[in-house]
Amino acid sequence: MPAPIAHAVSRALAAFLSGQSELVAAIDPDLAELTGTLVEFTAGGKRLRPAFCHQGWLGAGGDPTLMDESSSPTAIVRACAALDLLHASALIHDDLMDDSDTRRGRPATHVHYSRRHGERGLTGDAGRFGSSAAILLGDLSQAWADELLRTCGLRPDRVLDGLRCFDIMRTEVITGQYLDVLAQTDPRTTLDRAMRVLRFKSARYSVMRPLELGGVLGGADEALRRLYREVGEPIGEAFQLRDDVLGVFGDPEVTGKPAGDDVREGKRTVLVLLAREAADGGQLAVLEHWLGNPSMTDDGAAAVRTVMTDTGALARVEAMITERTEQALSAISSAPLEGDDVAGSLAALAVAATARSV
Amino acid sequence: MPAPIAHAVSRALAAFLSGQSELVAAIDPDLAELTGTLVEFTAGGKRLRPAFCHQGWLGAGGDPTLMDESSSPTAIVRACAALDLLHASALIHDDLMDDSDTRRGRPATHVHYSRRHGERGLTGDAGRFGSSAAILLGDLSQAWADELLRTCGLRPDRVLDGLRCFDIMRTEVITGQYLDVLAQTDPRTTLDRAMRVLRFKSARYSVMRPLELGGVLGGADEALRRLYREVGEPIGEAFQLRDDVLGVFGDPEVTGKPAGDDVREGKRTVLVLLAREAADGGQLAVLEHWLGNPSMTDDGAAAVRTVMTDTGALARVEAMITERTEQALSAISSAPLEGDDVAGSLAALAVAATARSV
Repeated sequence: MPAPIAHAVSRALAAFLSGQSELVAAIDPDLAELTGTLVEFTAGGKRLRPAFCHQGWLGAGGDPTLMDESSSPTAIVRACAALDLLHASALIHDDLMDDSDTRRGRPATHVHYSRRHGERGLTGDAGRFGSSAAILLGDLSQAWADELLRTCGLRPDRVLDGLRCFDIMRTEVITGQYLDVLAQTDPRTTLDRAMRVLRFKSARYSVMRPLELGGVLGGADEALRRLYREVGEPIGEAFQLRDDVLGVFGDPEVTGKPAGDDVREGKRTVLVLLAREAADGGQLAVLEHWLGNPSMTDDGAAAVRTVMTDTGALARVEAMITERTEQALSAISSAPLEGDDVAGSLAALAVAATARSV
Repeated sequence: MPAPIAHAVSRALAAFLSGQSELVAAIDPDLAELTGTLVEFTAGGKRLRPAFCHQGWLGAGGDPTLMDESSSPTAIVRACAALDLLHASALIHDDLMDDSDTRRGRPATHVHYSRRHGERGLTGDAGRFGSSAAILLGDLSQAWADELLRTCGLRPDRVLDGLRCFDIMRTEVITGQYLDVLAQTDPRTTLDRAMRVLRFKSARYSVMRPLELGGVLGGADEALRRLYREVGEPIGEAFQLRDDVLGVFGDPEVTGKPAGDDVREGKRTVLVLLAREAADGGQLAVLEHWLGNPSMTDDGAAAVRTVMTDTGALARVEAMITERTEQALSAISSAPLEGDDVAGSLAALAVAATARSV
C-alpha cells in the first residue's frame, strides 16, 4: 500500500486515540489499558481501506495534502483513518467468534485479556473475562470509528453524505459476517452463498465502499460513484479470493497466521467449495478429514494443498482473480478521473491488493 | 413511563426496522431473521431512555407532536427511538457477557440462536453459533441506532450537536460496562468503584445523557444543559440503586428475571458492598457462600435478603434513593423549563423511575 497515506493514517489514529485515552482515563484510570490495546491493534495492518478511500477522494478532485501546516493529519486523512477503527472492531469480534489465538503474529484481543486476568489476580473465569473485554473493545472501536469520521473536519454536507455510505458499509459487513457464520455451520453451503459472503463481508467492505466513500467526501457526482462501484467490486472480490488462497497456501512467516489456519477453522471459502465440487472420492475424503479439524497437522495442511492444486480449484481461483483484476483495470483506463496520475495510482493499488503475498 | 411517547417510539422502531429488514433481505433472505429478532427484542422494555429524551426536548421548548399528519412518528420520536436501539445493543452483549439465560421473560439472544442452530440442522457448536449471532446482532443494533438518530429528520446542525452528546453516551456506557466487568472479577472492588460503575454504566446512560440529548436536539442553551445534567445524574443514580434493590428483592413475576439473579451472578453492586461493609462474621459467611454461586437456591436468596436487611444495607440504599430523588425534584422545581407542565412531567418521570417495582 502507498506509504505516505499509510503513514499519515497512523498519525491520525494515534492522535485521535490519544485524545480518547485522556477522556476515558478521566472516568477511571483503569480504562487507559483499553485505549492502549486499540493503539497497539491499529498500529499494524495494511491500511488497505484507508488507501482506497484516499484514492476515491483524489479521483473526485480532492486536495492531496496529507498533513497541514502544523503537521497534523488533514481532514480527509482522519476520515480514512476511521475505516481502520471500524476494521479493528470487526477483527476483534471476528477473532473472538472464530476462536483465533493470534492476529498479526500477536495474541488476539480476547486471548490477551484472558492472560491479563491472571496477571491482575482477578477472580472468576479468565476466558470469560477475555471474551467480555473483546466484546466491549470491539463495541468501543465501532463507536469511535463513527465519531472520528463524523468529526473529521470536512464540510458537514459532504460528511453527512459520506455517513450514508458508511451506514451501508456497516450493515453490509455485519450481515455479511453473519452469512459467513451461517456458511461455516451449514453443510449445505453452496458456491453461490460463498460468493455472496465474499462480496458483502469483504469485497464491498474492503474496497468498493471505501473507494465510494472517498469519492462522496470529495464531492463525486453519481457517474463517478457508479464507476467506483464498478471498479471496486471486482477489485474487492479479487482481493478476497487472494486472501482465501493465502489462507491455505500463504507463508506463515509472511502472513503472521499459522499455516493452513483457514483449513483448521473449516472455512467454506470459494476455493474450498470449488475443490469439493471437483474432487474425486479420495480427494473428498482428505478435505472432509482435515477441514475444521482442530488437530490439523502440517502434513494435513500439505495434503489439502495438494487436493486444491490437483482438482484445479487453485487454478480456477487464480483465473477468477485475473479476470476481475483485468475487468477493473479496463474500467479504470476508460474513466474520467481527475488529477495527475490518479488512474495510474488506482490501477497500482488494484494490482497490489490482488497480487500480494501478505 | 408515559404511554403516548412509549407508543410512538414503538411505532418508530417498527417502521425503521421494517425498512432495514427489506434492505438486508435484498442481500440474502436468511438475514430477515436477524431483523425479526431485533423487532421482537425492541418491542419490549420500559422506554425509559426515550421518555427522558423526549422530556429534555419538551423542556427546551420542542414541539410536543408525536405523530405527523400522515400518522408517522415525528423526527424527535425517531431520535428518541434510536436510544432504545442502542440499548438493545447493550443488553444483547450484556446478556452474553453475563451468561444470562433470559431477558424480559424470554430466552436471551445468544440462547435463542443456539436453539436455532439445532432447529436448522447446522453443524458445529451450538453455543458458539449463538454467541456469534448475539455479537453480530448487538453490533448491527449499535450501527443502526446511530443511523436512526442521524437520519431522524431534525435540523442538521441540531442533529450534529446531538450526535456529540451521543458520542459521549456511547463511550460512557461501554467503558462503564468494562468497569463493571472488572468490578465483578476483582475481589478488591471498593464502594467507590461500584458507585462509578453505577454512574457511568447506568445513571448517565439511562437518564442524564438522554435528557441532555433531548435538550440539545431542541436547541437548549448551556444553562439548560447544565440543569439537565444536575437533575439527570441523581435521578439516574436513584434509578440504578432501585434496580439493584429489585435485583435482590424484586418479584420475579413482575421483573421477568429469576429471583436473586444479581446474587447468583455475584454482582458487586452498591447494595452488596454496603452489606459486606456492615456484616458480622456469620453474615459475611452467608454473603460469601451465595454471591456468585451458580447453584443458588430460593433459601439462599432469602438468606442473602435477610443479611441485607439486618445489616441496614437495604435501608441505606433506600435512603440514598430518597436523597437523590429529592435533590432532583428540588432542582426541577426551581428550573426555567418552557411549556406547560414540563416541570411536572419531568418530576413525575423522576419519581416513576426511582419508585418502580419493575
